[in-house]
Amino acid sequence: LSASTPLDRLMSDFHELSRIGANALGGVERQAATAADGAARRWLTAALVRAGATIHIDQVGNVFGFFEWVAGAPYVLTGSHLDSQPNGGRFDGAYGVLASLDAARHLSDDVTTGAWAPTWNLAVVDWTNEEGARFQPSVMGSSVFTGGLAREVALGAEDSQNVTVRQALTAIGFLGEAPTGRDFLAYAEIHVEQGSRLTAQQTELGIVTGSWAAFKYDLEFTGEQSHTGATPMAQRKDALLAAALVISGVHALAADAGDFHASVTELEAYPKSPNVVTARTRMHVELRAPDMQVLWELEARFLELLRTAHRETAVTNVIVRNWHREAAAYWPEGIELARRAASAVGLRTSEMATISGHDSIALNSVMPTVMLFTPSAGGWAHNVNELTEEADMLNGLIMITQVLRDLCTLSGGGVRFRA
Amino acid sequence: LSASTPLDRLMSDFHELSRIGANALGGVERQAATAADGAARRWLTAALVRAGATIHIDQVGNVFGFFEWVAGAPYVLTGSHLDSQPNGGRFDGAYGVLASLDAARHLSDDVTTGAWAPTWNLAVVDWTNEEGARFQPSVMGSSVFTGGLAREVALGAEDSQNVTVRQALTAIGFLGEAPTGRDFLAYAEIHVEQGSRLTAQQTELGIVTGSWAAFKYDLEFTGEQSHTGATPMAQRKDALLAAALVISGVHALAADAGDFHASVTELEAYPKSPNVVTARTRMHVELRAPDMQVLWELEARFLELLRTAHRETAVTNVIVRNWHREAAAYWPEGIELARRAASAVGLRTSEMATISGHDSIALNSVMPTVMLFTPSAGGWAHNVNELTEEADMLNGLIMITQVLRDLCTLSGGGVRFRA
Repeated sequence: LSASTPLDRLMSDFHELSRIGANALGGVERQAATAADGAARRWLTAALVRAGATIHIDQVGNVFGFFEWVAGAPYVLTGSHLDSQPNGGRFDGAYGVLASLDAARHLSDDVTTGAWAPTWNLAVVDWTNEEGARFQPSVMGSSVFTGGLAREVALGAEDSQNVTVRQALTAIGFLGEAPTGRDFLAYAEIHVEQGSRLTAQQTELGIVTGSWAAFKYDLEFTGEQSHTGATPMAQRKDALLAAALVISGVHALAADAGDFHASVTELEAYPKSPNVVTARTRMHVELRAPDMQVLWELEARFLELLRTAHRETAVTNVIVRNWHREAAAYWPEGIELARRAASAVGLRTSEMATISGHDSIALNSVMPTVMLFTPSAGGWAHNVNELTEEADMLNGLIMITQVLRDLCTLSGGGVRFRA
Repeated sequence: LSASTPLDRLMSDFHELSRIGANALGGVERQAATAADGAARRWLTAALVRAGATIHIDQVGNVFGFFEWVAGAPYVLTGSHLDSQPNGGRFDGAYGVLASLDAARHLSDDVTTGAWAPTWNLAVVDWTNEEGARFQPSVMGSSVFTGGLAREVALGAEDSQNVTVRQALTAIGFLGEAPTGRDFLAYAEIHVEQGSRLTAQQTELGIVTGSWAAFKYDLEFTGEQSHTGATPMAQRKDALLAAALVISGVHALAADAGDFHASVTELEAYPKSPNVVTARTRMHVELRAPDMQVLWELEARFLELLRTAHRETAVTNVIVRNWHREAAAYWPEGIELARRAASAVGLRTSEMATISGHDSIALNSVMPTVMLFTPSAGGWAHNVNELTEEADMLNGLIMITQVLRDLCTLSGGGVRFRA
């Protein structure tokens, strides 16, 4: 591929896929294992079959398209996710799946015409529930694939209506029985940046060198239901006030600490009456930092905030750290391989850690993994305004194709991962 | 009545009524115009009929029982409300209705035996939706009765499921067509205190001398949906953070200002995803103060908090003051009448303003009104732990009976209010 590569096929795919779950705001509502996600999966499956792939739906609904060019050889794997956030953007995940699909078609064409002879096979994947909006945890399908999350835990996860992942995948016809039974050598993913670092640095491609550490918590405050009029201020135990102190405190921590991201989201408050002091609040808290040492220090300061909130409001809390991800470095040879590929086509690159979770982080723990970012105009993410310009979509397609071409001919082949 | 008055009838009523909508926590779930409220209304209607009253359901569902002892004479009105907060207590409103009912039975017995000859008639009332939990505004039925709230506004109010008051009252069979067409002279209500002032002052009865001013607001923040990981902290527009700053700021205002109550309740946050920065929050804010001057000053400080939150978070807001109540004094002759009645039976009294809203505040704007408080053990309010001891229930019954006896023989009779 080169700068003269036609983008028509990818753009045509993109416009078709973007109509699935499209909302009036210009975004998509295609949360994991909903009917819209099912339609997107059927669209992808049909496209993979047309491109010559063999389909496998695994035990947690991950959709694989296998291009077996060399009988019995292990696979290089590439893909991303088709599920979206609520009222999400068209590019997050979807761009990566489409770029992987089109790269596979280009490479397959080269195999067919005899222009190229790979050593290894190629597989395209759509991972189940990367977003973690409807069902927690996020990065679900890839974590089951790598063994980081038990299948039964994933399938038993419930949405807010108490529908399980098992039920939802069954309903859309995408719950498979078994792992693929194939061997994998490496993973490559391209994803929109979801930030403004590339734009700020005036570069055209991000090469991911590492991933931030993160702790995620469920926090519940229990105060006391009382009267907003009659009850003296000093006697109230207001679970909403306790939540407010922690929300603003966590934000101040992040502002103080510099290279550190934190958020409180999904706040729920009960009971719902204008003149009743809130008795119970629940929320989700995330702390993210470049390394574990910083993260542990920040957790200590966060727990101190909880103690302060208790002293000031007499509200009690239960805090559960339900998820952690350690900081990790990406495969050095993969980083070098991406640098060379970018240099060959004259793309300016930035090397950066990913702060967000991605399926590639799960894969990076079990096999050599390459992760690329293509620019997000305006830095929009988890928002209907997400945009990656066509020129950048093309650059990303060229890059993922070259990286896959290199991985599929990598000498040695390394340790195989069976899943 | 005297200290030897039997309490059995009131306690028997209380235990029967408390079973309607009883929950496992020892409280009641009997929000306005629900099936449980309908059952409570049917229970009351039957009891009033057995006591010899004529029933009228007015245009907003208020339930009246008319004891017409003197043909064509105007009425003294007494009552409170049977609706509860979500997961509310057994005493709030219910105690007042039951005490009024039992007082009417005692007085009716005295009329029947010829022991007492009133000048005026008596009516017992259960006001629709005093609590304002399911439907806003609160103090709804009494405000329609007094003309302070248009019937169509009240009947059009919707709950969170978009059911209107009109539909809900129709469903339980308690939407009447017309006002009572009767004339009223005065109103008397007894209610549990919902605070600890009586206990603190070691008194047995509260005589309400005035009511606090209050402003109520709907506040909405609009931020921007973004990624909790990738989005730089400084670029976020977190509507939950803006809410937190205002919640803690309003609470700090109340702590600073002394004689001032404030609350933020009913917080709702969207979208609901762990890794999406909150784009929109909605909440209810109340400011209550002893007089309007203080309240206006506090509103100015509250609005300054909103400006600060905007500067710090770049989140925008829309604030609507949807309700206000001016401070008011209660009827001086009624206060004196209550003092004399308490003195006659040897009860220690406290005179106090009510901070909470009550139906009597609406009535106080159109006719001479007497409001009494009986102690709330532990000060619990809008909580399943609400408790008024039997000795206090008896004292309250004795007092409301004596006040009604005095009002029904009040010379002159004053200005009539027709509704």
